[in-house]
Amino acid sequence: MKKLLNTLCIPIRWVDMDAYAHVNNARFFDAMTEARADLLKTVIDAADICQFILVDTQCSFKKPYHYPGSMIIKQFIEKIGNSSFTLSYEFSDETEANYATGTATMICFDPLKKKPISVPEKIKSLVNGSIF
Amino acid sequence: MKKLLNTLCIPIRWVDMDAYAHVNNARFFDAMTEARADLLKTVIDAADICQFILVDTQCSFKKPYHYPGSMIIKQFIEKIGNSSFTLSYEFSDETEANYATGTATMICFDPLKKKPISVPEKIKSLVNGSIF
Amino acid sequence: MKKLLNTLCIPIRWVDMDAYAHVNNARFFDAMTEARADLLKTVIDAADICQFILVDTQCSFKKPYHYPGSMIIKQFIEKIGNSSFTLSYEFSDETEANYATGTATMICFDPLKKKPISVPEKIKSLVNGSIF
Amino acid sequence: MKKLLNTLCIPIRWVDMDAYAHVNNARFFDAMTEARADLLKTVIDAADICQFILVDTQCSFKKPYHYPGSMIIKQFIEKIGNSSFTLSYEFSDETEANYATGTATMICFDPLKKKPISVPEKIKSLVNGSIF
Repeated sequence: MKKLLNTLCIPIRWVDMDAYAHVNNARFFDAMTEARADLLKTVIDAADICQFILVDTQCSFKKPYHYPGSMIIKQFIEKIGNSSFTLSYEFSDETEANYATGTATMICFDPLKKKPISVPEKIKSLVNGSIF
Repeated sequence: MKKLLNTLCIPIRWVDMDAYAHVNNARFFDAMTEARADLLKTVIDAADICQFILVDTQCSFKKPYHYPGSMIIKQFIEKIGNSSFTLSYEFSDETEANYATGTATMICFDPLKKKPISVPEKIKSLVNGSIF
Repeated sequence: MKKLLNTLCIPIRWVDMDAYAHVNNARFFDAMTEARADLLKTVIDAADICQFILVDTQCSFKKPYHYPGSMIIKQFIEKIGNSSFTLSYEFSDETEANYATGTATMICFDPLKKKPISVPEKIKSLVNGSIF
Repeated sequence: MKKLLNTLCIPIRWVDMDAYAHVNNARFFDAMTEARADLLKTVIDAADICQFILVDTQCSFKKPYHYPGSMIIKQFIEKIGNSSFTLSYEFSDETEANYATGTATMICFDPLKKKPISVPEKIKSLVNGSIF
């Protein structure tokens, strides 16, 4: 059920590079956060945004990015469970080279009742394609 | 002799915001660094890039930025001395609102002789408009 | 009326370095933010913390920091006005070498009435030494 | 063969928090990078430092960190292969609460020959305890 949700082009900033003069590993996690923020601002009302808690994230690195250039990141939905869902990521550049892959698992949480809740219909509908 | 050198549109990342949910003050200095990196990659050979040392930088804040949106930053040359030059910055958004202003003074340094050197012709010519 | 408020020892993280393999200029502004956060958590009630808005900050660089090591930063109060106050900073290491100096001006702001307010007594008393 | 290599206490900076007012997920990866930098500066000569390339890293989050406080991170060696080794991480605070766990796999790379090489004896000896 892997399905593309959104694609972002993130310009690499000079300060994204670390002392090895390539983009630091933590910036890949920033990029995945960015892809989620982009998704949630589209799908979710501002009032709901605190309901999604990152419980696990991972990245495998194939090739380093350098300034100047852009990180192109595709975000996919991989799996939807009762109260959690899993996203995956592919990093490339304009030539489609494979730089990295990643994943992130989010749980849906009721901040008032302080317990996990069912994945909202708005997220489920991402898979059925009724939004994008 | 204030002269516009370059204009950058820097997309605000969600992670640029701090716990006050606005873009953190240090990100304005990242943006000024970015404008200099953009300038130097155009004007200067890679071999020369270590010759420019930031000795002073400053920013005055008028209005906070928030995600989503873009920081538009204009970089000007203000003054060229014997071995130093001063840049200034104007921060806006697409509607041209004034978010902040800043400055940066760079000295030109010979990393082998370990002493300041004259401002290179390539920088001086920025003012005379022979490059841009 | 310059008076020392607090001194912080901030361990340099490897990721604080940029592609020039020295601590990036924006990290000095992070350190000044850190000194203010440390001050405000001592002096100010949590409920008041949004009243202080950074309107101007500046740093002059003398010497680069490298990993491993620590940034030692001293924060001074320089001036208290009607609705603003100015802080200054000295950066050193364990041997007291002078790495940088900086300043920051804050205004005191009423977030409900959305206008500047008088500097609170708790800040004024910093100068008279009744707190530290 | 899991074996504790080093323990770091990383003071949380105010700027480590994101717009949710808790420590951002990317800071956990910074902390793991920091634990590796601390290890490598002890075990490895400066000349060797480019031989270690991060190929995969992951973090599972149990509990959020907030400013002020410290991230205490323990780094373990989990597995040593022919040209790669795997580290694992446990995040806690002074009370030993479990905040997160993570992993990182590094490959050993010859930058001149541009190919993977055997794990150096200095790393292998970490397991046998001859260094720590």
